[in-house]
Amino acid sequence: MQGLRQYLPILDWGRSYSRNQLSNDLVAAVIVTIMLIPQSLAYALLAGLPAEAGIYASIVPILLYTVFGTSRSLAVGPVAVVSLLTAAAISDVAQQGTMGYAAAALTLAMLSGAMLTVMGLFRLGFLANFLSHPVIAGFITASGLLIAASQLRHVLGVEAGGGTLIELGETLLPQLSATNLVTLAIGLPAIGFLFWVRKGLKPMLRRAGLGPRLADVIAKAGPVAAVVVTTVLTWGLGLEERGVAIVGAVPQALPPFTLPDLSPALISQLFVPALLISIIGFVESISVAQTLAARKGQRINPDQELIGLGAANLGAAFTGGYPVTGGFARSVVNDDAGAETPAAGAFTALGLAFAAAFLTPLVYFLPKATLAATIIVAVLGLVDFSILRRTWAYSRGDFWAVAATIALTLGFGVETGVSAGVLISILLHLLKTSKPHVAEVGLVPDTHHFRNIDRHPVQSDPTLLSLRVDESLYFVNARFLEDCVMNRLAEGSPVENVVLMFSAVNAVDFSALESLEALDATLRRRGIKLHLSEVKGPVMDRLKGSHFIEHLSGEVFLSQYDAWCRLARQGQTPGPVKAAAE
Amino acid sequence: MQGLRQYLPILDWGRSYSRNQLSNDLVAAVIVTIMLIPQSLAYALLAGLPAEAGIYASIVPILLYTVFGTSRSLAVGPVAVVSLLTAAAISDVAQQGTMGYAAAALTLAMLSGAMLTVMGLFRLGFLANFLSHPVIAGFITASGLLIAASQLRHVLGVEAGGGTLIELGETLLPQLSATNLVTLAIGLPAIGFLFWVRKGLKPMLRRAGLGPRLADVIAKAGPVAAVVVTTVLTWGLGLEERGVAIVGAVPQALPPFTLPDLSPALISQLFVPALLISIIGFVESISVAQTLAARKGQRINPDQELIGLGAANLGAAFTGGYPVTGGFARSVVNDDAGAETPAAGAFTALGLAFAAAFLTPLVYFLPKATLAATIIVAVLGLVDFSILRRTWAYSRGDFWAVAATIALTLGFGVETGVSAGVLISILLHLLKTSKPHVAEVGLVPDTHHFRNIDRHPVQSDPTLLSLRVDESLYFVNARFLEDCVMNRLAEGSPVENVVLMFSAVNAVDFSALESLEALDATLRRRGIKLHLSEVKGPVMDRLKGSHFIEHLSGEVFLSQYDAWCRLARQGQTPGPVKAAAE
Repeated sequence: MQGLRQYLPILDWGRSYSRNQLSNDLVAAVIVTIMLIPQSLAYALLAGLPAEAGIYASIVPILLYTVFGTSRSLAVGPVAVVSLLTAAAISDVAQQGTMGYAAAALTLAMLSGAMLTVMGLFRLGFLANFLSHPVIAGFITASGLLIAASQLRHVLGVEAGGGTLIELGETLLPQLSATNLVTLAIGLPAIGFLFWVRKGLKPMLRRAGLGPRLADVIAKAGPVAAVVVTTVLTWGLGLEERGVAIVGAVPQALPPFTLPDLSPALISQLFVPALLISIIGFVESISVAQTLAARKGQRINPDQELIGLGAANLGAAFTGGYPVTGGFARSVVNDDAGAETPAAGAFTALGLAFAAAFLTPLVYFLPKATLAATIIVAVLGLVDFSILRRTWAYSRGDFWAVAATIALTLGFGVETGVSAGVLISILLHLLKTSKPHVAEVGLVPDTHHFRNIDRHPVQSDPTLLSLRVDESLYFVNARFLEDCVMNRLAEGSPVENVVLMFSAVNAVDFSALESLEALDATLRRRGIKLHLSEVKGPVMDRLKGSHFIEHLSGEVFLSQYDAWCRLARQGQTPGPVKAAAE
Repeated sequence: MQGLRQYLPILDWGRSYSRNQLSNDLVAAVIVTIMLIPQSLAYALLAGLPAEAGIYASIVPILLYTVFGTSRSLAVGPVAVVSLLTAAAISDVAQQGTMGYAAAALTLAMLSGAMLTVMGLFRLGFLANFLSHPVIAGFITASGLLIAASQLRHVLGVEAGGGTLIELGETLLPQLSATNLVTLAIGLPAIGFLFWVRKGLKPMLRRAGLGPRLADVIAKAGPVAAVVVTTVLTWGLGLEERGVAIVGAVPQALPPFTLPDLSPALISQLFVPALLISIIGFVESISVAQTLAARKGQRINPDQELIGLGAANLGAAFTGGYPVTGGFARSVVNDDAGAETPAAGAFTALGLAFAAAFLTPLVYFLPKATLAATIIVAVLGLVDFSILRRTWAYSRGDFWAVAATIALTLGFGVETGVSAGVLISILLHLLKTSKPHVAEVGLVPDTHHFRNIDRHPVQSDPTLLSLRVDESLYFVNARFLEDCVMNRLAEGSPVENVVLMFSAVNAVDFSALESLEALDATLRRRGIKLHLSEVKGPVMDRLKGSHFIEHLSGEVFLSQYDAWCRLARQGQTPGPVKAAAE
């Protein structure tokens, strides 16, 4: 039973489900459903898919996440960044608008679902950590800009496309003169209205005396108002005949049963994009889930979350959807609206199923410009260049990783951008550890402490060179330590003993072991003994397993002070104090 | 002048060149020349090039290394592993035996020369450190096996080829019945003789009363004896007509002036292989140079070595050669024979130029089986599986990196093998640091020291959780620490203060900073304060630059003991001693 419950969190919260929780969950579901209808249509459009795919991707996936997920308020479905990644991946293998395009979206969802599930079963949730915070922030910001730029064509009523800022500019700019002014007259006010709803409406409602909760709900319903007003206008004024692109006929049906195309050629083409989508989707989802859980002192199990998201994506693959993940905006709304258990998600799914079966005729006259406006306003909220300033102030390495991620995402598309960001941050980390800080230390008078002789007034002994190594030793920096020691032993130096202080050395790999052996041999030829001090337990256990310790010319001291007492000429009597910071 | 001398080491040793050095260098040059003639022919054969390319690659490159290199005894020219890599790289773009094949070899040498030079000018010598010692050892062992297997066809007198052990087996085994027995009757005894020369001749000569130096020189001349005997036999007995493949006509000329093919398509195809060849060649060369220099207390400048090898490869590109590097065997012979300055290399080049101009007719009847025998015996000396045992005993991570490198090199070829080895060792290192050792520490009674409560009998306080973090904090492990702390704070724990002891934290990157902020916020919500202790200077400088320290709920203590004195309930009075290792 414990095994089953581990994989089915619903068994935990389901058995104590109360009437009070039920009513809270129902209220949250109504609010989220209203918000999700236009959002789902819009993101499907962004992914290059028929509008109904967005609704379908919100029904069965949510139900499956309810069963397998661990977050109490995460809302799963299509999200902006994953929709953009989906468009980028499928555009390489099929033409937008064709059957092949929609089929490839199913394959992508299936691959992603399978990968997430496997990662969850093998407990590989930590793989998400390879995306550093600055890389994620830079990627989200650049993706937001790309998405907004890609939606401009719907607001202008022209044809344009592309996966990079340059391609979008090149296809869009020549069309500017062909702008459909009626479309623009819908799109621009919609954008303005939605920005105002976002920034100005809630404070205004509060001033008008509404409670914070109600003001918030009304503000969140803003997009629905834009949808209703522009749809009615388009229908009433016959704007379709004036060139306003509309959503048109959306099938009035529950999600269909679909089979993804599993041809080996397609799978091999979509494998890497699916991996990227899985990892980025997981990172987005887990960040939201952990943020919301922390507020209430709940805990999220990342490996079970992988299984939950994997099930959701497999569900999307078989019910006409496309890759999904836990979305930020919808989860926050869900949480704010009072959702207490994943059952709120299930009720949302029922609401959307009702909409799919009965309400789709209502969106026939919905202008695409309105959907584009909701996307633009939503994603511009993701754009945050402050990460550049903050990383610049804290660490140049992180800054360059963000800057490269943003520039490459805008210039070469989302897949190149995020892959490069990961590689650059790993490379910069390796470079940083390739030349570790090595400080010569001396005894702080009247204590047992040793400090950097360049920063502190300390005692030293010309025959004893004590070096504190501030990094684990491994292949990337193994040779550096050798060079570093030899560079400090100029011709004719009086040094007879070298002590390496290992208090900050957390590991010594095989390459570093061989370098230490080589260093010992080189020093021995010059009549100098090599010693170690303050070696940590796990490192010492390992060194003892090799023959290094028994062949070492010198000794291993428990503390640097013991080494000083044994090796310094003046023993424990204070020697000349070296001046600080020369 | 200092600037010029930095890039032209010849100006250093050249101005004090003495008559005594001259005579020593001359003796060494004669010995190395005799050894190099068959070796150069053999390695050209291994690279799939005409025999003379091996000689040409040994003349101008050596002269250029003499001018730009820093090692006093390194001998530059064709080597086994680089020859194999060359064959693997060019086979993908041209058919062996065609003009295009030889032209691509020149392009490869030029690309490699340009890369090495640029790396030297930008001081990127440390890039070689990304090849860990175990990966190099595994790669060399697997390459040795591949090379020996690829030469079997010459010993058997059949046609076969391929870049992996499987391909070699598949093409060779069906031909076994077609073995040319006369060729085998030359090849097998040659292999046996050369093995005996390597292992048994020198001790025998010593027992016969010869001095160690002379015995060594005679043993090194073994391959020349094999060449002379088999050439004379083939000529005298007319074995060519019995199907024995011979070297045939080699142009009797000084190295020609050649222009590499610089078409963009070829360059883009050869770019990655050239980078691999450059880095592997550099690693091999610098290892040899440093080993030999250490014996004499000399120093090698890795960045200037890059320039020296770069010049040598550029020279090879314009004089009918192919990629070269500093070879192990030839350099050791050069050093043993008494070479004192790089001038010995220059004299070797003159000797080889003389051979190219006048002696090539002598090798007309040299059987390819003999050359194959010299290669087989030379490379089997590189095969050393003990690295598997040694890494297994020391560290499983290193073991898996070696094992994968060997298996992938044999199964998928040299380029895949070494690339995978590098990636695997980087990945394993990142994984190792992704879940750092975090120990709960307590006060060792009557001292100021803190140790792991699971290993030592120490004092602890239920309201104070002290954790020593044994790793730098960066994006890969940032979230781990958060989880780690939260997992130790079970529901209802009496902890009021958490102290993170940072004595082994050498860096905190931006992702880790954000995780620490998130941890502080989460703890604050539970009414728990977060403190740091023993933060190193460089880490503290950085944290002060952010707002983390000022917003921190707790304090930063200079030592863990200070933290204990302030925060522990019992202050400095000893509390209950926790039992060791429960």
